Amino acid sequence: MGATASVDVVEVGPRDGLQNEPTVLGTSTKVAYIERLIRAGARRIEAVSFVHPRRVPQMADAEAVMAAVPRDAGVSYIGLVLNRRGLDRALAAGVDEVNYVVITTETFSRRNQGMGVEASLAAWHDIAAAARAAGVRVSLTVSAAFGCPFEGEVPSERVREIVERSLATPADELALADTIGVGVPRQVRDLADLVARTAPGTPLRMHFHNTRNTGYANALAAVESGVRVLDASAGGIGGCPFAPAATGNIATEDLIYALHRSGVRTGLDLDATAAAGTWICERLGKSEPPAMLGRAGSFPAPAR
Amino acid sequence: MGATASVDVVEVGPRDGLQNEPTVLGTSTKVAYIERLIRAGARRIEAVSFVHPRRVPQMADAEAVMAAVPRDAGVSYIGLVLNRRGLDRALAAGVDEVNYVVITTETFSRRNQGMGVEASLAAWHDIAAAARAAGVRVSLTVSAAFGCPFEGEVPSERVREIVERSLATPADELALADTIGVGVPRQVRDLADLVARTAPGTPLRMHFHNTRNTGYANALAAVESGVRVLDASAGGIGGCPFAPAATGNIATEDLIYALHRSGVRTGLDLDATAAAGTWICERLGKSEPPAMLGRAGSFPAPAR
Repeated sequence: MGATASVDVVEVGPRDGLQNEPTVLGTSTKVAYIERLIRAGARRIEAVSFVHPRRVPQMADAEAVMAAVPRDAGVSYIGLVLNRRGLDRALAAGVDEVNYVVITTETFSRRNQGMGVEASLAAWHDIAAAARAAGVRVSLTVSAAFGCPFEGEVPSERVREIVERSLATPADELALADTIGVGVPRQVRDLADLVARTAPGTPLRMHFHNTRNTGYANALAAVESGVRVLDASAGGIGGCPFAPAATGNIATEDLIYALHRSGVRTGLDLDATAAAGTWICERLGKSEPPAMLGRAGSFPAPAR
Repeated sequence: MGATASVDVVEVGPRDGLQNEPTVLGTSTKVAYIERLIRAGARRIEAVSFVHPRRVPQMADAEAVMAAVPRDAGVSYIGLVLNRRGLDRALAAGVDEVNYVVITTETFSRRNQGMGVEASLAAWHDIAAAARAAGVRVSLTVSAAFGCPFEGEVPSERVREIVERSLATPADELALADTIGVGVPRQVRDLADLVARTAPGTPLRMHFHNTRNTGYANALAAVESGVRVLDASAGGIGGCPFAPAATGNIATEDLIYALHRSGVRTGLDLDATAAAGTWICERLGKSEPPAMLGRAGSFPAPAR
């Protein structure tokens, strides 16, 4: 990893991790998960999404979660929003950051966001301006940046175009998401380079799923390509709605094991993160957590 | 992957994959697994090991497996041997290649091979010479090259020393094994470079376990470092005796998915390999195969 000193991990277990899990947890369990993550060192947590509860029942108690999480721990809480109504709820709930999503392909955008890519980009400008006016950080995730479950291959030119068109209202951070877990390191390097050229100076975050066992290779390739912020979920929880038998987000504990062994600091405690991952998997009734560290143990001794 | 055109995958499912599985399969099931692998394109298969049946009951029928596998399919069958008795059995059974193992650390070597590293290296010269005299290819695997379950960190200097001392009887191929799945890409690059300098001209193979979710990143890093031969097991079968709850070898189907998407050819059919992996996992009673491709499906369409 050369001169890379550290990487910030955004803990997305409470939102992206839980969102696709069939077991709906109570608010107190979600808050306890978040508290464990904080004790393990997490400082940016995607805690909730503000979407219609009929679409994502797991997130119906977003306001209650935000009202209960510790606010004096130096943690930045992120809320995912897909529209202006969601933004208003997020601001009222007191999030520190909002994350908005634009999907690369027309089919996936209409199915998931209920609008086409043009309308989704137009809404970005409105939401980003409103969030900024409210003094809240706002990041933009480009989803299905590595491939689409409906349209297949996504040309990197398509990603470049969306990033470029977002720049009229610059995001505080851009994220590229391999939403369905199809990417490989070659794409990671190409896309990291493309974003650096298209939006120079904007911090780049990447978001990987391990659906086809390429997620950790992609994450390490991202760090080698200069990416300094990665999403991950403790326990590796989170399904893929397009591959119901497959696993979800890369696991925070497995990611930081690889990073720490590569000489990259994260500020996270490996054992405490793995314990939080194992704990939430137990709450979800998973007999075999997607995360490996909790099962295999660290090497050669508890690493930090 | 730059100019890399192709990688040869050595299918180790029938030996390293099955060896640690608690369900002992019948000879006909093992042969059927091998036949499926051949139909999927496998051309080098680690089929059996010639060790004492009390130590590895799954391999007790090694001679029967070798007598039943197809010999007109252009496949090179590898047998693992740990001593001269094993070599004699391997030669009598008609293997095309033998693979001998030296373990990097004294403790692991004594526990697993029943002798220290010095004695193990001395036996290498005897076995390699005898195999060669019999007209059989002979490869040397340096095990626990990335870390030891008993002694912890393994300095790369230790690996260099063992490789160098093996050279008096040169192997047809050297392999470095991350036997317990603790390695990261940084180590892969360092060790690939070290072997290229220590044994220039000797083909290098690498062997990864996905015990801590670094196996695929390591495999891709190996290819980027010039390694042209990788071990993998269809289905990702194979446990880790030092982490019983963890998974084993990297899965052939997941490896070739990543390679093919990276522009690297393998000569293997992805769908047929994934089907062979799913099939053997069913025989072993695994409800959730370690391999992901069979669960998630290929992208964007059946890839070759």
